[in-house]
Amino acid sequence: MKSDSAKHVVIIGAGFAGLWAVKTLFGKKGIRVTLIDRNNYHTFFPLLYQVGAAEVEPEQIAYPIRTLLRGRRNASYLRGDVSRIDYANRKLSCNDRRIGFDYCIIATGSGTDYFSVAGAERFAFPLKTLDDAMILRNHILTCFERAASMDDPDARRKLLTFVIVGGGPTGVEFAGALSELIRGPLKKDFISLPMNDVSVVLVESADRVLPMFSPKLSAYTTRRLRKMGVDVRLSAPVKEISARGVTFMDGSICASDTVIWTAGVSGTAPGSDDRVPLSRGNRIRTLPTLQIPDYRQVYVAGDLVYLEEGGAPLPMIAPVAIQQGRWAALNVLRQERGGEPRPFAYRDRGAMVTIGRNAAVARIGAREFRGFIAWIIWIVIHIMNLIGFRNKLFVIVNWIWDYLFFERSVRLILPGCCVSPEGNACLHRPVSST
Amino acid sequence: MKSDSAKHVVIIGAGFAGLWAVKTLFGKKGIRVTLIDRNNYHTFFPLLYQVGAAEVEPEQIAYPIRTLLRGRRNASYLRGDVSRIDYANRKLSCNDRRIGFDYCIIATGSGTDYFSVAGAERFAFPLKTLDDAMILRNHILTCFERAASMDDPDARRKLLTFVIVGGGPTGVEFAGALSELIRGPLKKDFISLPMNDVSVVLVESADRVLPMFSPKLSAYTTRRLRKMGVDVRLSAPVKEISARGVTFMDGSICASDTVIWTAGVSGTAPGSDDRVPLSRGNRIRTLPTLQIPDYRQVYVAGDLVYLEEGGAPLPMIAPVAIQQGRWAALNVLRQERGGEPRPFAYRDRGAMVTIGRNAAVARIGAREFRGFIAWIIWIVIHIMNLIGFRNKLFVIVNWIWDYLFFERSVRLILPGCCVSPEGNACLHRPVSST
Repeated sequence: MKSDSAKHVVIIGAGFAGLWAVKTLFGKKGIRVTLIDRNNYHTFFPLLYQVGAAEVEPEQIAYPIRTLLRGRRNASYLRGDVSRIDYANRKLSCNDRRIGFDYCIIATGSGTDYFSVAGAERFAFPLKTLDDAMILRNHILTCFERAASMDDPDARRKLLTFVIVGGGPTGVEFAGALSELIRGPLKKDFISLPMNDVSVVLVESADRVLPMFSPKLSAYTTRRLRKMGVDVRLSAPVKEISARGVTFMDGSICASDTVIWTAGVSGTAPGSDDRVPLSRGNRIRTLPTLQIPDYRQVYVAGDLVYLEEGGAPLPMIAPVAIQQGRWAALNVLRQERGGEPRPFAYRDRGAMVTIGRNAAVARIGAREFRGFIAWIIWIVIHIMNLIGFRNKLFVIVNWIWDYLFFERSVRLILPGCCVSPEGNACLHRPVSST
Repeated sequence: MKSDSAKHVVIIGAGFAGLWAVKTLFGKKGIRVTLIDRNNYHTFFPLLYQVGAAEVEPEQIAYPIRTLLRGRRNASYLRGDVSRIDYANRKLSCNDRRIGFDYCIIATGSGTDYFSVAGAERFAFPLKTLDDAMILRNHILTCFERAASMDDPDARRKLLTFVIVGGGPTGVEFAGALSELIRGPLKKDFISLPMNDVSVVLVESADRVLPMFSPKLSAYTTRRLRKMGVDVRLSAPVKEISARGVTFMDGSICASDTVIWTAGVSGTAPGSDDRVPLSRGNRIRTLPTLQIPDYRQVYVAGDLVYLEEGGAPLPMIAPVAIQQGRWAALNVLRQERGGEPRPFAYRDRGAMVTIGRNAAVARIGAREFRGFIAWIIWIVIHIMNLIGFRNKLFVIVNWIWDYLFFERSVRLILPGCCVSPEGNACLHRPVSST
């Protein structure tokens, strides 16, 4: 299986960047690849918010890595955490083992950045991993169950107030999906609960949501969300998050037991004794070829890359990660074949964000779309990109069903998923009890 | 919604017995029902082992209780644990609240009984709840991941030895499903692992498996399991379970990191200061009417009932629970309408156990079936009884897919599900590391 003369490429992270990197190296002569990830599955991040909003099941947006590598004799998977990289000696530490490499592609992506907002890390729910999404789903459903047997109206209102901090794509999509979950199936499930007590609040510090689109689409998004019952608060910077809820810079307070933080992300590179140039937000400043300046055998791809194009850094989104993963792998091949690595150029095909039933915004090339047509585009593109036939089928069935019947199938509070081994928001933050 | 004169029936437990009891009381005049369960979903127990063997997703065999109660104005759901029942005063304690009742149907079912086998509770995995099944699935897949990067052959063999204690339906079904998981998809996923190191061992203290069938069917089951690669050990009573594995009464040891205990169940009634007559295995000895002798307003239904018929106690299986749940509710109505509760009589329609692909055993009335025909009967009956159209559809698709392609879709190690809030086998029993 392993040819001794083959060069060893280690890819860290099986997100979009890592996955497209390993695919590019499948079957390439003289190359063997080890793909390392702490999870044995790839997560389709664009639909993560739907797991949090009990729309699809976690298994439906994840795919086993080993199945993706099946039959590829030059690629293997290692489940583990890379704790350190020794760039100079081309070695890394994983599960207490030292693993040498000829080339490395770091695609460890990004994590939640709380921007040093007081209490945010402790009291807010992140939404970056499948685990986060399941914990959030359990927590939201638990809030409703507790509210159902709660007599104190203030405590009940606090349990039923859901504040989403951050008006980017994740914040907008989650606010829309949560509002539909509540106003559809949960309203029918909890007929004894006064629905006036329920509120979904979307908080954004800037004066508009979705800054990557034109102001017109931002305004449309805000209008649609408000029509769906979401309380959109613009120009509302957050000062503190606590057990009481969210405190804004102007001193006002929104009492809530559930604050979801989608406002910031930052790079999560493995530690190292060697110095690599970092940008604001802990991303690695690479050469245009995606190489790390002093260690030309090490590439970076995806959210972790800080690379400017036309004066602005590339966004941390799936299309950039996919193209960079592929590009980093191609540059490894070029370098290995004695050629020169070439600079990466992002082919921007567009962007899209769904708001809710029949409503989305999209940009394809220079054209902008909104409403039903954008929503259909969003659905088609997401189903096409979801990995695995069964995942596609199950997600389609769920979406059609929910569309026709205003229903959600996935509303279980699975007890095993309330506490992650590392400890998390659920541990820090038990729902206040009377 | 609540009419003050309506009599309050509390049903504890939303398993088969509790669910059929509440259904029987839907819309009945002068009756209001509160259904209490610690989980917000009903679990379809007969397919639980398939969650443990990564065949179906947990969401596919569970159904939200509130959806089942939708539109039924005289029934409501309360999520909680009943800690105590005050039979004499007709009150119970749930979530630190006291709830009064006119009638109560206790349907809290059964839990794992380790028969005081040394180390069993600490070192063996139970398989009685959805949570248990997910933890077991994660553990088994983790064993394979660890074995894949393990050099010590003894430690690897220990990681890849799975011992199932108990040759009843759950043990047989799980052994078959696990063997198919391993010899199908896992074999393809872990091509570097020597499959000779993997073993599935089914241990039974009696001299045959499935004692509820004829010796002929037991022998057929053993033969089929062995053909599938399961190491069936009959007349092999277990003395101790430890971090080393299973120690048998004859002193021999089977080294294993995964012992699954399916050998025993016992009743799990809520505590009380009042005395109720208990049988061996902590089940409540009821009158033939399913009433508790001294407290005629309290009924018991399902696994928790100890009731003999024709000299033998009724088995702890779904059909008995369904019929008793319905019967207890009918007796409540009879009693409330001034009539006499009637004695329960079990209508035994048969029993069935699946072994694997194209193989099952079944008894319908007095006739016994085996092989493909029994397997088809098993599939049809289980799909018919599964609650929810989407659950039926998704399970059918999964089964057809797996049948055609020898594949499993569900192979994720979801980190959030490794540790349950109460602490469990996973905590007690980390996989041994080198």
